[in-house]
Amino acid sequence: MVTIGDKEFYKGIGKIEFEGKESDNPLAFKYYNPDQVVAGKTMKDHFRFAIAYWHTFCGQGDDPFGPGTQNFGWDNSTDVLQRAKDKADAAFEFVTKMGFDYFCFHDFDLIDEGATLAESEQRLQFITEYLKNKQQDSGVKLLWGTANCFSNPRYMNGAATNPEFNVVARAGAQIKMALDATIALNGENYVFWGGREGYMSLLNTDMGRELDHMGQFLTLARDYARSQGFKGNFFIEPKPMEPMKHQYDFDTATAIGFLKEYGLENDFKINIEVNHATLAQHTFQHEMEVAAKSGMLGSLDANRGDYQNGWDTDQFPNNIQETTEAMLVFLKAGGLQGGGINFDAKIRRNSTDLEDVFHAHIGGADTFSRALLTADKIIQSSSYQKLREERYSSFNNGNGRAFENGELKLDDLYKIAVDNGELSLKSGKQELFENIINQYI
Amino acid sequence: MVTIGDKEFYKGIGKIEFEGKESDNPLAFKYYNPDQVVAGKTMKDHFRFAIAYWHTFCGQGDDPFGPGTQNFGWDNSTDVLQRAKDKADAAFEFVTKMGFDYFCFHDFDLIDEGATLAESEQRLQFITEYLKNKQQDSGVKLLWGTANCFSNPRYMNGAATNPEFNVVARAGAQIKMALDATIALNGENYVFWGGREGYMSLLNTDMGRELDHMGQFLTLARDYARSQGFKGNFFIEPKPMEPMKHQYDFDTATAIGFLKEYGLENDFKINIEVNHATLAQHTFQHEMEVAAKSGMLGSLDANRGDYQNGWDTDQFPNNIQETTEAMLVFLKAGGLQGGGINFDAKIRRNSTDLEDVFHAHIGGADTFSRALLTADKIIQSSSYQKLREERYSSFNNGNGRAFENGELKLDDLYKIAVDNGELSLKSGKQELFENIINQYI
Amino acid sequence: MVTIGDKEFYKGIGKIEFEGKESDNPLAFKYYNPDQVVAGKTMKDHFRFAIAYWHTFCGQGDDPFGPGTQNFGWDNSTDVLQRAKDKADAAFEFVTKMGFDYFCFHDFDLIDEGATLAESEQRLQFITEYLKNKQQDSGVKLLWGTANCFSNPRYMNGAATNPEFNVVARAGAQIKMALDATIALNGENYVFWGGREGYMSLLNTDMGRELDHMGQFLTLARDYARSQGFKGNFFIEPKPMEPMKHQYDFDTATAIGFLKEYGLENDFKINIEVNHATLAQHTFQHEMEVAAKSGMLGSLDANRGDYQNGWDTDQFPNNIQETTEAMLVFLKAGGLQGGGINFDAKIRRNSTDLEDVFHAHIGGADTFSRALLTADKIIQSSSYQKLREERYSSFNNGNGRAFENGELKLDDLYKIAVDNGELSLKSGKQELFENIINQYI
Amino acid sequence: MVTIGDKEFYKGIGKIEFEGKESDNPLAFKYYNPDQVVAGKTMKDHFRFAIAYWHTFCGQGDDPFGPGTQNFGWDNSTDVLQRAKDKADAAFEFVTKMGFDYFCFHDFDLIDEGATLAESEQRLQFITEYLKNKQQDSGVKLLWGTANCFSNPRYMNGAATNPEFNVVARAGAQIKMALDATIALNGENYVFWGGREGYMSLLNTDMGRELDHMGQFLTLARDYARSQGFKGNFFIEPKPMEPMKHQYDFDTATAIGFLKEYGLENDFKINIEVNHATLAQHTFQHEMEVAAKSGMLGSLDANRGDYQNGWDTDQFPNNIQETTEAMLVFLKAGGLQGGGINFDAKIRRNSTDLEDVFHAHIGGADTFSRALLTADKIIQSSSYQKLREERYSSFNNGNGRAFENGELKLDDLYKIAVDNGELSLKSGKQELFENIINQYI
Repeated sequence: MVTIGDKEFYKGIGKIEFEGKESDNPLAFKYYNPDQVVAGKTMKDHFRFAIAYWHTFCGQGDDPFGPGTQNFGWDNSTDVLQRAKDKADAAFEFVTKMGFDYFCFHDFDLIDEGATLAESEQRLQFITEYLKNKQQDSGVKLLWGTANCFSNPRYMNGAATNPEFNVVARAGAQIKMALDATIALNGENYVFWGGREGYMSLLNTDMGRELDHMGQFLTLARDYARSQGFKGNFFIEPKPMEPMKHQYDFDTATAIGFLKEYGLENDFKINIEVNHATLAQHTFQHEMEVAAKSGMLGSLDANRGDYQNGWDTDQFPNNIQETTEAMLVFLKAGGLQGGGINFDAKIRRNSTDLEDVFHAHIGGADTFSRALLTADKIIQSSSYQKLREERYSSFNNGNGRAFENGELKLDDLYKIAVDNGELSLKSGKQELFENIINQYI
Repeated sequence: MVTIGDKEFYKGIGKIEFEGKESDNPLAFKYYNPDQVVAGKTMKDHFRFAIAYWHTFCGQGDDPFGPGTQNFGWDNSTDVLQRAKDKADAAFEFVTKMGFDYFCFHDFDLIDEGATLAESEQRLQFITEYLKNKQQDSGVKLLWGTANCFSNPRYMNGAATNPEFNVVARAGAQIKMALDATIALNGENYVFWGGREGYMSLLNTDMGRELDHMGQFLTLARDYARSQGFKGNFFIEPKPMEPMKHQYDFDTATAIGFLKEYGLENDFKINIEVNHATLAQHTFQHEMEVAAKSGMLGSLDANRGDYQNGWDTDQFPNNIQETTEAMLVFLKAGGLQGGGINFDAKIRRNSTDLEDVFHAHIGGADTFSRALLTADKIIQSSSYQKLREERYSSFNNGNGRAFENGELKLDDLYKIAVDNGELSLKSGKQELFENIINQYI
Repeated sequence: MVTIGDKEFYKGIGKIEFEGKESDNPLAFKYYNPDQVVAGKTMKDHFRFAIAYWHTFCGQGDDPFGPGTQNFGWDNSTDVLQRAKDKADAAFEFVTKMGFDYFCFHDFDLIDEGATLAESEQRLQFITEYLKNKQQDSGVKLLWGTANCFSNPRYMNGAATNPEFNVVARAGAQIKMALDATIALNGENYVFWGGREGYMSLLNTDMGRELDHMGQFLTLARDYARSQGFKGNFFIEPKPMEPMKHQYDFDTATAIGFLKEYGLENDFKINIEVNHATLAQHTFQHEMEVAAKSGMLGSLDANRGDYQNGWDTDQFPNNIQETTEAMLVFLKAGGLQGGGINFDAKIRRNSTDLEDVFHAHIGGADTFSRALLTADKIIQSSSYQKLREERYSSFNNGNGRAFENGELKLDDLYKIAVDNGELSLKSGKQELFENIINQYI
Repeated sequence: MVTIGDKEFYKGIGKIEFEGKESDNPLAFKYYNPDQVVAGKTMKDHFRFAIAYWHTFCGQGDDPFGPGTQNFGWDNSTDVLQRAKDKADAAFEFVTKMGFDYFCFHDFDLIDEGATLAESEQRLQFITEYLKNKQQDSGVKLLWGTANCFSNPRYMNGAATNPEFNVVARAGAQIKMALDATIALNGENYVFWGGREGYMSLLNTDMGRELDHMGQFLTLARDYARSQGFKGNFFIEPKPMEPMKHQYDFDTATAIGFLKEYGLENDFKINIEVNHATLAQHTFQHEMEVAAKSGMLGSLDANRGDYQNGWDTDQFPNNIQETTEAMLVFLKAGGLQGGGINFDAKIRRNSTDLEDVFHAHIGGADTFSRALLTADKIIQSSSYQKLREERYSSFNNGNGRAFENGELKLDDLYKIAVDNGELSLKSGKQELFENIINQYI
C-alpha cells in the first residue's frame, strides 16, 4: 500500500491508521476512517483528500524575514532530474503513508524550470513520465494540475493580464505545457490562480483592457484543453490580494460574474480556499454557499488563516466549529462538483521535525472528518434543518409561492400589505441555532 | 437665490461663495467655483452636488454609545406635518445657501412614518406636495429618492429577502410609495441600498432562495416604475456589511454580477459610496473603475471612512490624493451615468455648532473641485496618460491586436513564445506615477 | 431560590437546571453544573457568572440603522421609580432563574438619569435601597458597579479627559455617586471603561494633557472610595476604539503601562473583554496572559466578536476552542483576582423571543464550563503541560539559570556562543500542541 | 561631493539637486532644499535623512510568491569580501548622489554571515574598516546600526526570547559584534527590532518568562555598550506582528511600558515605523504623540503601508496629508531625540529600472519637506494652534489648574458640579481643523 522509492524519506513513520478518538497515538487518525459511510458515501469519497506538492515537498519554510528551515532529504542531488525523481518518490511515499488518494501540483513544483522554454518542456515531459509510473504503482491520482505563472520575474506585471503581449504569449506557452502534463497524468481538473493578475497601482493600470485579456486567455486555454480531449473541470481560485495589492478574482461572487461575462460558466467552477475567503472578509461557509447557489462548488483548498493578522498564513485546518458549519453547506450542496479537499497548507516555519507534517495532515483530516460526522448528526437528529426550513415556509404556497413564480406585481404586494395590517416580529433564533451546533460537537 | 421658509434656521450664515484659495474665510469655497469650466464642462455640471436629507436634517449625532447631540430648530413642533414642513424649509435653505442644485432622500427622512401604511402614505403625499412647491421656488432638484426598508423593526430579518412573505409584501408596498414620491418630484434616479438584505448568521439562512427573492423584487419595482413613466436610472448601492453581518451587495463586482444574473443590467447602474468601498477592502477608485468598465458608473456617495477602525464613519471627504486619483478615473470614464455626487456624510457627534455642517460641506466640495482641477492638469500637462497608454501599446497592432481580436489560439501563443526566447523586464514605474500625481497637487 | 417580584416577567420559564450533555432540553445546562468540583473548586466559584444589567434589561436591540425590537414588560410604567423597580424585579428574576450569583451595572442602567445632578442622586439612592432588599431576599451579589460617563451628550468630548474642566468635574460627581451606590450594595469591585476617553481627531487634541488628567482623575476616585471604606478592586477595561476613533486604554499592555505611570498599580487590575481584545488585534488568551504576567488578571467580560466585521458585536461566547485555550491560561494563572465572568453580551437584534436571552446565557455558561472541563483534562491527562515546560528547561539550571538571575554579562553570552559552535534546530511543534487541544475537546 | 568607488553603479544619474516645485525634472527635488531654514533649523538638520542598507542595496524584490527581480551590479563578484566592498561603494555612491548624510544597517546587510561565529566576526571587522574609510572620504555618517537576529533559522523560535538558552547566548554574541561595529563607525544610535520576539502560538509559549528574558537581555546589551563608551541612544522599534503571529513590542505604548518595567527608560527611546504603526491600528501621528508624551520620540522609519491589505508593504512615503499632520506633532515635540528619518522603504517588485530607486527617495524626501513647510505655515499663519490650545484653557487657572496640581478631591469635583448646574455643549470643530490643514497644503 505504501509506495517507497529507492530511498525511504520518512523513516520511522509507517502508514497512518484510524484508531478512533480514544487513541493517544499522535500518529493515528482519531476521526478519519476512510471507508466509514456517512450520509450515504464513504469519507474517502466525500473528501478525496489531496496533498499539495508545493507546500509539502517544495516549501522549506522561508518567509519574508528569513530563509527556509526545512532540510529535505530529496533536495540533495545536484542533478536536476534526479532531484525531481527523489521529490516524486518522497511525495508518493508521503501520500500513501497518509492513506490519501490524490495530489495536486504546479508545473515547476515537479521539477525546476529550465533556462529556456524548450528545456522546461523537456523537463516537464521527463517528470511526467516518471509520475505516470508512480501513479500506476500506487493508485494515487491527480486531483488537479496548475501552472505557476506568478513566481518567475517575467510575470512581475501579470501573466494573462500583463501589459505586454509577449509576456501574455509566454504565459500561454506555459499553460499549454501544464495542460499537457495534467492531461498526460489523467488529471481530473485544472486550476487557475492568478497570483499576479491584478494590480499594484491603479495609476499605471488599464483594468478594463486587462480583464478582457484575461477572459480571452482563459477561453484559449479552455479551447486548447478540450481539443486535446480533456473532460475535467476548470477551476478559478479566488483571492483578494497577495501578492498583488489587488487581484482580479477577489472572491467567489466576483469570479462567477467574471466567468459569466466571458461565457466560461459551463466549463469553469470555483476552487475555494479557506484563507482566501477570510482575507476577502468572508467565511469559508459563505464562499461555499455562493458557489453552491450557482452550481459551481468545484473544489476546496483546506487551510486556515489567522484572525490576528492580515496575510495568507496557510495553516492546517483545525477549527472544529467553522468546519462543522462548512460541512452543513457541503452536505446540503450534495458535495463538490468534480474536485476534492486539497490540503493547501504548510507547517509553521519552526515545525522542523520530520513528523510535524504528519501531525499537521492528521489534524486536518480529523477536523474535516469530525465535522462531517457532526454535521450529519445535526441534520439527522436535531431540529436544525426543520427550524431553518420553516422560516421560509410562507413561500411554499399561496401568495409567497406566486411571488416566487413571478405571478405578482408590485401593486399586488401593495394590496397584500394593505390587507395584512401591521405584522408581528418573528425571532431569527440565532442563539438557539448556535447552541444546537455546539451541542452536537 | 437662497430659499428661506417662514423661519430662517441657519441664521447668520449667508450664501457660500467662491473666494479662491487665498481666502481665509472659512465660510467660502476655496476651489469650488460652480461655473468654472474644467475639461469642457462646468464644475457644477460635472459634480451635481447633492445634500443627503438623512444626515444633514435628520441625523442628530447619536451613535451606539449615546443619543444625539444636535438640537435642530426644525424638530420643535409637536405636529408631525408642521415638523416635516419645517425640516423641508431648513433643507431648502441649506441647499440654496450652499449653492447646490440637488438633494436626495429616504421616504421617512421627509416625514415620520405613520402608525399604519395608509397613514404613512397620506403623510408622504402631503410632504411631496410641499416639496414640489419648494422645488419650483428654488430650482433645487431631486437627484434620487429611496426607501428606508431597514430601520423599522419589521425589517429586522430583511426586507426583499425576509424569510416571511408578508414582510416582503410590506417592503413592496413601501417601495411603491417611495417610487410614487420620487416620480412626483421629478427624481432623476432611484436607489436601492439593502441595509438588512443579507444575514446575521448563515445557520438560519437560505441564501439561494433569498437572492432569488431579491432579484424578483427588483424586477417588480423596475416594472412598476416604468409603468408609471419613470425614465431615470435605478442604482444599487453596494455595502459589504453593517448593519448585517454580511450584506448581499458586497461590492460593485458582486452587484453587477447579481444584476446580470437577474436580467436587470439595462435599467440599473451602481451608486458607489466611498466608505462602503473601503469597508469591502477596495479603494474608491477601484470601485469606480469596475463600474466604469461595465458602463455602470451611475452615481457617487461622497464621504470617507477611517482606516483605524472598522465601521462606516461617513466622514466628509477630505483626502486630496485619493480624490485626485478618483477624478482621474472619473474623467477617463466620461463622468457619471445619470447621477451626481451626493454628500452621504455626517459631521462628528461632537461638532455641535450651527456652522459645522457648512465647514463640512465646503471642505467636501473643495476637495472634489481641487481634485478635478488637479486631475485635469495631470491629463493635460503631464506625461501621466502617455506613460500609462504606452504600457499597453503592444496590443495596438500585430500579434497583440490579433490576440485581442480572438484570432490567436493557445498554440499560437506557444509558437510566439518559442520564437521570442527570453524576455527582458519592463519596470511598472509606480513610484514615478505617484510622484507625478503629487507634483500636480 | 427564584426571586420573583410583584409580577413574573419571564413567564413559562423556570429555573435553568443542569441536565448533562445528553439532554435535548434547550432550556437546560449541558455542561454548567454549579457545584461540580473542577481543579479543586466548584464551577460556581471558578466563574462567578454575572449578568450585565445594560444588555439584558436595558438594551432593546437598537443599532445604528434602526431602533430597538425588544418590548420589555418592565418598561411599561410611566413612573420612573416604578419602572426602575420593575426592571430590578425582572433582573433578580432572571439572575435567579439562571442560577447565577452576580450582577453588574452602570449607574443609569438602574434608573433613568434625572434632569439635574440632585435628582439623579436621589433616584440612585432610591433604587439602591430597593436593590439592597432584593439582594437580601435572593442572595444575589454585586460583582461590580460602574458609571456611564459616555452616553450623555455632555461627555461627547470625553469625561475625565474632556478639554473643559467643568465637564471633568461633572464626571467626578457622577463617579462619586456611582461609587456610593456600589459601596452601599457591597459591590466587590468597581470598573472604569473610558468610552469617550480618547479622541476623534488628533488635530484638536492635547494627548499628553488628557492622559495626565485621566491619571489624576482615577487617583481622586480611588482615594475617595478608600476613604469610604471600599476594599475591593478597581478595574480598567481596555478597548481600542468605538465610540472614539481611538481610545486611551487601547489594550491590556497599554492600560498596565498607564496604571504604573500614575502609581495606580496596587489598586487597579484589568477587566478583559473578549471583543475588545479582538478589536485590538489580540486574542482573548493573549490579553489574559499579559494581565496574568503582571498579577492583574482581575475580571472577564465574556462575549465574542465577529471576525468578518470591525465593530463590537458583543455576541454571546460560543467558541469552544478559543475558550478552551483561555481556560488553560485561567487555570495556570490561578483564576481571577477578585472578579468573575460577566456576560457582557447581547442577543441579536432579531432575537425577539422571551426565551432567546435564556438560550444565549445557557450557551455562554456551557461554553465556559465545557472549556474549563477540557482544559483541566488537558492539564491532568495529556502531555501538553510537560511539552510546554520542557521547551524552557535550559533555563532551570546552569548558564540559563545564571542568565535569569542576572549573573551573566553580554561578554559571557559571547563566550558561551563561541564555545557552543552551531546549534541544531528544535521544532516548536505547534501542530502537535493544536492536535492535543482538539483531541480533548 | 558624490563618492564613487572603483566602478560607478548608478551610471547616468548625477547628484540630485533641488529645483523647486515648478521643475519638471523627475530626478530633482521639488521641495527638499537641504539648507533652507524652516522653524529655525535647516531641513537637513530637521530630518537627517538616512538610507536603509537592507532595502536599497540588499533587497532584490523577492516576495512570498516569487524571487527577486533586481539585478544589482554590486552582487556580481564571487568573492564575499569584494562583494561587500562593491556594495559599500554602491551605497556611498547612492547616498551621496541623493545628497543625504546618513545610512543605517543590520550587521549582515554589510557582508554575508559566515559559517561560524568567528568567521562572521572577522568579516564584520573587515567591512567595518572599509566603511570607516568611506565615511571619512564622504562625510556620510551612521544614524544607527542593528543586528539581524530574525532571518537565520537558528532564531526561528526567537532570539532573546528563544526557549533555549543557547540560542539566547548566540543572539547575545551577535548583538555584541553589531554593537562593536556600530561603535567603530561612530554610530549615533543603536536599534532593536525583535522580529522573532513574540509567538506563533500561545499554546507552546511561556510569555512571562520570555518577557523577563527580553528585559534581561536588553539590560546586558545596554551595559556592554556603555562599558565600551557608547553614548548614543538605544531604540526599540515596535511592530505588532510579521513575521511572528504576535510580537512583544506591539506598539509604542507597549514598548514604553516594557522599558519602564525593566528599568531601561533612561537609555532607550522609540523608533517609530509608519507601516508598523498602521499594522497596529494606529496612525503614524498617534505613535509619535505617545512617544513624545514620554520624551521618547527617538527616530522615525519613514515608509507607508497599504490600507487595502494587511502586511508590511514598506512603500515609500507619499501621503501629503498624513505627513503634514505628522510634522505638526514633530514640530510641537521639538523634533527627534537623537535619531533621524530613515527611509525604511523599498521600491515595488516590478520597479526594475535603475532610476526607480531615485524616484522613490526623491518622492519620500519631497513629501516630508513639503509637509514640514506646510506644518510650519499652519503653525505660523493659521488659527490652528490657538484653536487647539483654547480648548484646554479652563485648566490654565482656577479650579482646572487646581485639579491639574492635585489640589482637588473627588468631593470637590462633586461640589463644583453641583454649583455649576447643567453645562452647554462645546463643538470639537473637527471639520474646521481639517479644512485648515487642507487649506495650507
